[in-house]
Amino acid sequence: MTANKNYQATLVAEMYKPGRTVLHDDLALTSAEVSINTLPAGVSLPFIHAHKQNEEIYVVLKGKGLFYIDGEEFGVQEGCVVRIDPAAARSIKADEASELTYVCVQAKAGSLEQHTQGDGLPAEGQPSWQK
Amino acid sequence: MTANKNYQATLVAEMYKPGRTVLHDDLALTSAEVSINTLPAGVSLPFIHAHKQNEEIYVVLKGKGLFYIDGEEFGVQEGCVVRIDPAAARSIKADEASELTYVCVQAKAGSLEQHTQGDGLPAEGQPSWQK
Repeated sequence: MTANKNYQATLVAEMYKPGRTVLHDDLALTSAEVSINTLPAGVSLPFIHAHKQNEEIYVVLKGKGLFYIDGEEFGVQEGCVVRIDPAAARSIKADEASELTYVCVQAKAGSLEQHTQGDGLPAEGQPSWQK
Repeated sequence: MTANKNYQATLVAEMYKPGRTVLHDDLALTSAEVSINTLPAGVSLPFIHAHKQNEEIYVVLKGKGLFYIDGEEFGVQEGCVVRIDPAAARSIKADEASELTYVCVQAKAGSLEQHTQGDGLPAEGQPSWQK
């Protein structure tokens, strides 16, 4: 798509096709890694893992699946959002009868100092729809 | 849903209904703010804004719209992912004929030290599907 000094954009053409698209390098991300992931029906991540520094935030977009975190399991579906601390042992599996698509955000635990209105500023500019 | 020391989960029941669900407080996020947003057809954010510290990453889930960044405009659709630096002046508008749904991630620019395999660790555990 387009790139200049202050932004970069890309298109993940098939978000719901089995596979994993990591966006860190394509978008030169500096605050968080974002990936789009689709597990085929019945398939799980290949291993249980934890993290050194990073909190993970999962946004489930489509399908059904199971999260395993520290010995507990729970079902997920469209609209489920899950925060996982770095130390937690985790895995994910798509239901036997359904693919599972989710966005995974990975960012350094404790690094967020302010957000939303607290970090926003009014700025100058005039989009075409305000002319 | 469920909460313990190492994770927290919630359900955004209607991701595609016009409105904005901010997840920072519900999930006790410490690394990034994540919100799920749906702009009604023809509606834009109410003002042009920039950020003090935070990079924003938008993942477009559904519909069509226009991004305005620093005087440039481009169309977005399902699968578009956009990184915007803190200083950029930005706004977003849904197409006249289409709602626009996106995930917005906000995290401190420059805070990510490592990601994906670089931050991952093997962990102990045994999900039901590996028994």
